[in-house]
Amino acid sequence: MRRKTFARMNCSIARALEIVGEWWSMLILREAFMGSRRFSDFQRNLGIARNILSTRLSKLTRQEILRRVPSKSDRRRHEYRLTEKGRALFPALTALRIWGDRWVAGPDRVSVKVIDLRSGKEVNEVRVLTEDGRPVDPRNLAVIPGPGATRATRARFQAVPKV
Amino acid sequence: MRRKTFARMNCSIARALEIVGEWWSMLILREAFMGSRRFSDFQRNLGIARNILSTRLSKLTRQEILRRVPSKSDRRRHEYRLTEKGRALFPALTALRIWGDRWVAGPDRVSVKVIDLRSGKEVNEVRVLTEDGRPVDPRNLAVIPGPGATRATRARFQAVPKV
Repeated sequence: MRRKTFARMNCSIARALEIVGEWWSMLILREAFMGSRRFSDFQRNLGIARNILSTRLSKLTRQEILRRVPSKSDRRRHEYRLTEKGRALFPALTALRIWGDRWVAGPDRVSVKVIDLRSGKEVNEVRVLTEDGRPVDPRNLAVIPGPGATRATRARFQAVPKV
Repeated sequence: MRRKTFARMNCSIARALEIVGEWWSMLILREAFMGSRRFSDFQRNLGIARNILSTRLSKLTRQEILRRVPSKSDRRRHEYRLTEKGRALFPALTALRIWGDRWVAGPDRVSVKVIDLRSGKEVNEVRVLTEDGRPVDPRNLAVIPGPGATRATRARFQAVPKV
């Protein structure tokens, strides 16, 4: 079954998912953040089929989330490294981890903790902020059209008056 | 093709994706955050096939991310509302939106903006923090086993010394 593409939807969540929302892609990125670089590292740590891993790594490389570089220790091999675009997915992955810790695993079943090496403190919060740095309540928000809104998006989300 | 389940992986990102990582699930949740409640609202705003929408709504309800309640205006109809567990996905969805805005759409093609109604300011940052509220750099982190780590997870992630 050919899956409907999200790429042409007038929505950044849809566009993001079109690129990183496929089954396995986020876990491949988790591995990259945890230091996996070689095909064999990803394969061993994920237990993923080689053909699927190969397809996903190619797509992530084509989308410039990973880049493929020669290995420093053996120039005949290559490695996959996160680009700036890839590293920018850190808040999304961390938000999923923290949600899974709290709402799926529960405190006694948390599998790993992420520690800030400078302070030794746990990394366990993702805060949504306004442009002036204030935390927000999801029940107190409005959606308005942006500069790239289609006519349908404009019709749906009318501008709210400035408060 | 039966897809490999992530549910038994010793990882909260995997467990989260097992629940909300299926194609369409995150966009159904986006709709719920934007105020969609009825089956017909989700269907119209997403352009999703009815059978897929029905399957996804059932799964999200079973997982207690949405709850199914009688409609206030017409008790013969029902609506889907976010639970506390569902609302807790707000940072993950916002992180994906902001990443998509910046790295896929670009500033001139942003489709919608989210506005905090109290201040009128844009909601455009997701910050990852330590338990004492400090921002972190993803290149300065370590992973250590948690209370629910399996033997394999323990072997992979050795405890780092407290700084």
